[in-house]
Amino acid sequence: MITLSSDFGSPYPAAMRGVILQRTDARLVDVAHDLPRQDVRAGAFWLREVLPWFPPAVHLVVIDPGVGTDRHAIVVRAGEHAIVAPDNGVAIPVARRLAPADSFDVFRIVEQDPATASGDWPPVAESSTFHGRDVFAPAAAQVHDVGIQELETDPGFEPLEEYVDLRFPSPTSEESRVFGEVLVTDDFGNAITNIPGDVIADQFGTTVTVNGKEWPVAETYARVDPGTALVTVGSHENVELAVNQGRGEDAFEVAVGDEVTIAW
Amino acid sequence: MITLSSDFGSPYPAAMRGVILQRTDARLVDVAHDLPRQDVRAGAFWLREVLPWFPPAVHLVVIDPGVGTDRHAIVVRAGEHAIVAPDNGVAIPVARRLAPADSFDVFRIVEQDPATASGDWPPVAESSTFHGRDVFAPAAAQVHDVGIQELETDPGFEPLEEYVDLRFPSPTSEESRVFGEVLVTDDFGNAITNIPGDVIADQFGTTVTVNGKEWPVAETYARVDPGTALVTVGSHENVELAVNQGRGEDAFEVAVGDEVTIAW
Amino acid sequence: MITLSSDFGSPYPAAMRGVILQRTDARLVDVAHDLPRQDVRAGAFWLREVLPWFPPAVHLVVIDPGVGTDRHAIVVRAGEHAIVAPDNGVAIPVARRLAPADSFDVFRIVEQDPATASGDWPPVAESSTFHGRDVFAPAAAQVHDVGIQELETDPGFEPLEEYVDLRFPSPTSEESRVFGEVLVTDDFGNAITNIPGDVIADQFGTTVTVNGKEWPVAETYARVDPGTALVTVGSHENVELAVNQGRGEDAFEVAVGDEVTIAW
Repeated sequence: MITLSSDFGSPYPAAMRGVILQRTDARLVDVAHDLPRQDVRAGAFWLREVLPWFPPAVHLVVIDPGVGTDRHAIVVRAGEHAIVAPDNGVAIPVARRLAPADSFDVFRIVEQDPATASGDWPPVAESSTFHGRDVFAPAAAQVHDVGIQELETDPGFEPLEEYVDLRFPSPTSEESRVFGEVLVTDDFGNAITNIPGDVIADQFGTTVTVNGKEWPVAETYARVDPGTALVTVGSHENVELAVNQGRGEDAFEVAVGDEVTIAW
Repeated sequence: MITLSSDFGSPYPAAMRGVILQRTDARLVDVAHDLPRQDVRAGAFWLREVLPWFPPAVHLVVIDPGVGTDRHAIVVRAGEHAIVAPDNGVAIPVARRLAPADSFDVFRIVEQDPATASGDWPPVAESSTFHGRDVFAPAAAQVHDVGIQELETDPGFEPLEEYVDLRFPSPTSEESRVFGEVLVTDDFGNAITNIPGDVIADQFGTTVTVNGKEWPVAETYARVDPGTALVTVGSHENVELAVNQGRGEDAFEVAVGDEVTIAW
Repeated sequence: MITLSSDFGSPYPAAMRGVILQRTDARLVDVAHDLPRQDVRAGAFWLREVLPWFPPAVHLVVIDPGVGTDRHAIVVRAGEHAIVAPDNGVAIPVARRLAPADSFDVFRIVEQDPATASGDWPPVAESSTFHGRDVFAPAAAQVHDVGIQELETDPGFEPLEEYVDLRFPSPTSEESRVFGEVLVTDDFGNAITNIPGDVIADQFGTTVTVNGKEWPVAETYARVDPGTALVTVGSHENVELAVNQGRGEDAFEVAVGDEVTIAW
């Protein structure tokens, strides 16, 4: 199985599907192609939340503001999964979740001559602007067919010691306050913070202060009236600022990167 | 085969795909994940229009403004199809179309302990905010593998007598007038009413009055000039207010729920 | 394998998937359903860029402003591929790319009586507004199962001599100037011209004048600072007006169809 994730919108992902299908019979499953544009941190967050729900698979991930520069193309092997991605950190948070105690391996994808590449697809020169199609998609097919646990045996992959790491900012706390920030907002307008949900998990039915104003804490959206704001724990187990059938980012007046202080 | 429909946007549907693929080899087919947000009636309309075109399948449907409350999760068995959905009416209009004379059966999905659930996917506690992933997706996989006609044999499903019904409003008429309303608008801006198409089917080439103004009646969009409004019969066999290569909702100045009166 | 492309948005493409799956076990792969609405030329451009990356397949393509008129429904056989589409030119540029020296064949899809059509799907009358579901999807399944090279043997397909052609406008040049236009813009806001990339391929690192202003020429987006405009060669091998992590159409103040003059 190969999953596909990108910030390409449409129709570019179809070219990646075609290139993969030229080379392998693997099952293809789209994750999303509207990940926040060229936002490596937000992409890393969503992949960490979504990919672990899949069975063992090769995950093709292309959020690549550095396309055409000398950043590496890598494969991160984490447990029974492999993530094929640019070396910009996007694959690391999900690798940490898939492989306990940072026991993941990173490989560099060695550039291959299209003239000698396997398969009968049109031999083209690599473009400078679309490595999703020209580098990452062929590599994902290759990882799938070589086998996630056999990468050491293939000259297309070389162990890589140094890679770009990415960690989400950690919240801090003092007495009865926690200081965090908005990591991402979702399609519903929910503002998802980096504050762990257990901070409010014993306060459902009460209120907390967020950025100086008081709000109800509730176990789920429908516990408050439609249009009413609430502080809840999202499916990602972080504190989430939401509105039942509305947009939390508007009610709480926050955007990605904004500080969030919760106080009792 | 399992189809997936929701109002989740992106990337949440991918977690449902992953959970299903952890548990079954069923073919997955996406219907749509941009159904009108938390609009049960509009979702019910689109599902009634689209799902009957599929071969026998399990249809996972999640439009669920009541997530986390005590509303049931249900399976509606209609002919050779099964619809897995929240008990809010979203599944009923399509069930009526799939099973003549209301001969459909409703089952309650019995909550299962993740610790004893089948499969080797990560055992997690059920979230309060994402039952699509934690309740409905596992249930769809289970319905698929148990068999649509064998639900009575599985302790995960209990017959349910009382469920939430949903019927679209019926048009009324007097003399040479029909009173209906706009049920939904589509991506093209066509305003789809609840008025059956046969009301105008013998009037192609003439005009009718809609909400007090006169408009041409035509068999299809291209029968009028680009940019020209028309009254036609859509593929759903209802009267549709449209503009050739434009947006009917703008030309007719109507939105979902607005009254539509057709007169001769 | 059957690929699906349209300008339908959502959820109409799902009805096409269902109709095909009623009739064949072929693998389905979505290309895009948000191709520019009713824009035959832009659709033809994207299909030419994307479909050749696929292995041999039947490609269902529905951009059909003339639905319900007497325009033909056709199959274009180009090499090992077949494109099922309305006869409005949308399929021709990709056919020219797939079949060297215009060696493609065009067939008319002969209308079939739903009552005698194969498969056990609901026999319905053909609608006037949704031929994607009622004409093209069944035809794509039929082409797949009959076999791309066997269309002559099936009464559902008749050779067609006269069909609607479509060619993109060619750029012209004089001395040190090239005159072209914007063919399409993509989701990133890149303005893709009809000017071949080799016009600027030896000028990376220098500047050119576009529509009277001077801009840097660079091999890829990240060669200039974020927010900076550049002239580059896109993955389609045409000159592209772009901004690193921004929108080229805004910086260059151009839209589809606008003239683009490059001078040295």
